Amino acid sequence: MEGKTLIQEAIKIQGDVVRKMKAEKATKEQVDKEISKLLKLKAQLEDDGKHQFVLKTAKGTRDYNPKQMAIRERVFNTIISSFKRHGAETIDTPVFELKETLTGKYGEDSKLIYDLKDQGGELLSLRYDLTVPFARYLAMNKITNIKRYHIAKVYRRDNPAMTRGRYREFYQCDFDIAGQYDSMVPDAECLRIVYEILSELDLGEFRVKVNDRRILDGMFAVCGVPDDMFRTICSTVDKLDKIPWEDVKREMVNDKGLSEEAADQIGEYVSMQGGMDLAERLLQDQKMSRSKQACAGLSDIKLLFSYLQLFQVTDKVVFDLSLARGLDYYTGVIYEAVLCQAGAASSPADVHNSTFSVECVSVGSVAGGGRYDGLVGMFDPNGKKVPCVGVSIGIERIFSFMEQKAEDLALKIRTTEVQVMVASAQKNLMEERLKLVTELWNAGIKAEVLYKKNPKLLSQLQHCEESGIPLVAILGEQELQDGVVKLRVVATREEVDISRSDLVEEIRRRT
Amino acid sequence: MEGKTLIQEAIKIQGDVVRKMKAEKATKEQVDKEISKLLKLKAQLEDDGKHQFVLKTAKGTRDYNPKQMAIRERVFNTIISSFKRHGAETIDTPVFELKETLTGKYGEDSKLIYDLKDQGGELLSLRYDLTVPFARYLAMNKITNIKRYHIAKVYRRDNPAMTRGRYREFYQCDFDIAGQYDSMVPDAECLRIVYEILSELDLGEFRVKVNDRRILDGMFAVCGVPDDMFRTICSTVDKLDKIPWEDVKREMVNDKGLSEEAADQIGEYVSMQGGMDLAERLLQDQKMSRSKQACAGLSDIKLLFSYLQLFQVTDKVVFDLSLARGLDYYTGVIYEAVLCQAGAASSPADVHNSTFSVECVSVGSVAGGGRYDGLVGMFDPNGKKVPCVGVSIGIERIFSFMEQKAEDLALKIRTTEVQVMVASAQKNLMEERLKLVTELWNAGIKAEVLYKKNPKLLSQLQHCEESGIPLVAILGEQELQDGVVKLRVVATREEVDISRSDLVEEIRRRT
Repeated sequence: MEGKTLIQEAIKIQGDVVRKMKAEKATKEQVDKEISKLLKLKAQLEDDGKHQFVLKTAKGTRDYNPKQMAIRERVFNTIISSFKRHGAETIDTPVFELKETLTGKYGEDSKLIYDLKDQGGELLSLRYDLTVPFARYLAMNKITNIKRYHIAKVYRRDNPAMTRGRYREFYQCDFDIAGQYDSMVPDAECLRIVYEILSELDLGEFRVKVNDRRILDGMFAVCGVPDDMFRTICSTVDKLDKIPWEDVKREMVNDKGLSEEAADQIGEYVSMQGGMDLAERLLQDQKMSRSKQACAGLSDIKLLFSYLQLFQVTDKVVFDLSLARGLDYYTGVIYEAVLCQAGAASSPADVHNSTFSVECVSVGSVAGGGRYDGLVGMFDPNGKKVPCVGVSIGIERIFSFMEQKAEDLALKIRTTEVQVMVASAQKNLMEERLKLVTELWNAGIKAEVLYKKNPKLLSQLQHCEESGIPLVAILGEQELQDGVVKLRVVATREEVDISRSDLVEEIRRRT
Repeated sequence: MEGKTLIQEAIKIQGDVVRKMKAEKATKEQVDKEISKLLKLKAQLEDDGKHQFVLKTAKGTRDYNPKQMAIRERVFNTIISSFKRHGAETIDTPVFELKETLTGKYGEDSKLIYDLKDQGGELLSLRYDLTVPFARYLAMNKITNIKRYHIAKVYRRDNPAMTRGRYREFYQCDFDIAGQYDSMVPDAECLRIVYEILSELDLGEFRVKVNDRRILDGMFAVCGVPDDMFRTICSTVDKLDKIPWEDVKREMVNDKGLSEEAADQIGEYVSMQGGMDLAERLLQDQKMSRSKQACAGLSDIKLLFSYLQLFQVTDKVVFDLSLARGLDYYTGVIYEAVLCQAGAASSPADVHNSTFSVECVSVGSVAGGGRYDGLVGMFDPNGKKVPCVGVSIGIERIFSFMEQKAEDLALKIRTTEVQVMVASAQKNLMEERLKLVTELWNAGIKAEVLYKKNPKLLSQLQHCEESGIPLVAILGEQELQDGVVKLRVVATREEVDISRSDLVEEIRRRT
């Protein structure tokens, strides 16, 4: 682009020259000469334009290079292992859905959906999450029971904040349990899975906040929020993890017209955090207990915590009345996992009314989910409901975190799995190298040769150093005569002659 | 939709009733009564409308169910193993690119590109293949050397033929080698990889056809095709695997205005198939040897076959002058792998002028690729070229084939990896089951419980039968008292009591 700017500048200057000459009534010959210069510059700009497309990925998206892919593969393996440990199957759905499939599922966020251009045929949109396609899949195939995971990219026309791992194209990693079951058992298993994954990924201290849509709605009711304002007040409460209570209150009162009294009552509740004990206390709470909905939610939270104890995860789970979550489709339990600031876990708790140790300054959400019993019914022609509960792992945040960690520790990350490089010490051994590498491939050994006819031994060894290949099988005239291969260990520079017929076994033994 | 149509019919009839009464000057009371009926019907239609979206995936796309995913996972593992055996890294790119990145890369096929709607911001298109994004990636990051694979979905607004495995959303599985190397070595390795993958997937007999863009262009030149008709004649030749020569000739002469004489000369060449010997013969061919381009291509085919011999794959590779391949960006060697009709491999060859045994009636292409030395240069601001060669595995055809095979053989495909189901023989043991399954999860065992409080033992065992779970760990009052678990082998119905502390070890031993 540099070149283009220079020419554009030159055109501007030359344009001024021509205009000035005309103004100063220069001879036609003089003016024509300068105009011809100007035209040449313009032609040059056009020529350059042929190569002047912008070399970039679309806004809010990124490529993954081999190092990032190696990290991604490791993270996925950990997550998939946990999903499989809990007996999940997997499915896949198309990247775009009929536009109407997504319509009316995401509330205010619908404006962030990517639409495809109408090129004749159906109106299509890129999927916004994996939950709505999952519900569509269940209804379409009349499936009433499934435990499945789905790992795929989703698309949101959001304001990207790529340094914080927020993209317009990003992976979701979803685990969901569909089916009519005894209350809170699948819900508890979802939380167990979050616990397993975050522990195994070794991301440092974390907390899983839990709440229930019915408790939120009940709380709004008893605090005097009008019915038709539940959703909008809820999305304001959802901001509590980013902005202080004073600002949240101001938005409720000034922007949304809630009475100050109602806001203050909400403020008292949303500062509460705890465990099963808090659920019990709130069931006794004079005001809260007036809402049947809230009581149902609180009883389920109690039951949930009893299962979480059996699943041995209560040390990280907090019942937190400020947790709201934006999406429209949740109907029961909701949860969100956050990483704690390094070191902050040992500082005193900065919460009121809590009997529970929740010392965690959140540095960002890495998982979230909840129960959505109505979504599948929205797709069924007869409105038949299939209760669902699920969790989505915030994999992009986790990638960013792992990348940063690898960088901080200057970790050497291998991007290939090559076990041995087939090299030659002399010239004219290309054919012999190709023969040997074929023998190794036939035996299932991961092996490479340089594609040069006569590479230097040094450059072959350097390639091994750079890409972390542990062994080199070196051929020379002498070795070929003796029916051996010189096997070199890159790390120690140790070299041994191995009979050609034993080579495969020896490489397997050493890798 | 049935219900909706009936109501619409009723509305029409009722509308007629109202109109008729008005026309017949009925009393206002009578008319109002009928109008109120009409309004009720209309309201009903609106209510029903809420559930009246079409439950389907977008045209040309499909969901993958857990069985299909299990097959897909197995196929991917085989392919990725081969890619890794050859030392490939992997990368990923976004599903959409700037529209201008894709412009001018696909010739006539550009009309099949999916565009995104202009919602403000950049103009975007869904990727059409993985090769152009790869070239963009190399130019953008100034990479001149890489061996990478990329497995991802691509998008084409083609006429879908889903029974034959042709979709608008489909996976591509690409392996490419970029870099300036000695001639034909990376090209030969690509063919070796195709050979490995198709053999290991056990798809039956196959052939890999090889040709070279320069041979095609040279052949067109010496046959008297005008320069500006090379591309269009080439895309007609490309149809030879689907329609007979007579129809191809007719298209050349009648539709494209080629002289009959030129067409006949092309006809002679494109019926030739063989091996290294054919390349040698054509180098001596009076007419063909007049083209420098053709000679360069033929020499490289000779060299290629010498490497293919070292790589032990010549039994499946055919030099075939009819192979054209549509895409604009190929500059050298091109190839395509086809599966042979079952049984056809033993029937006599139906080809002329061939000294090579090529008895294969193609039932469809399953891999293709070639050399594209100019593509990266199209993205580089200075036009700097990076030579590339690669192959794309036609994974959707392979999925279809494997699915059909699984169905034909009535194979039982497991969709989960659960090793053991934790079951109870009596009521009220939910908590004990959850405790035990937690112990197993803690030890990394893949384990499940039913989510019911009091499931029948029979239904727990049935679940194991259905989903292929090999072991059941059964708890009862007695077992709990004795500190044991009854371990049942589903296949043999054998049952043994195992001390609780030995259970994990015993499950590992048996799975």
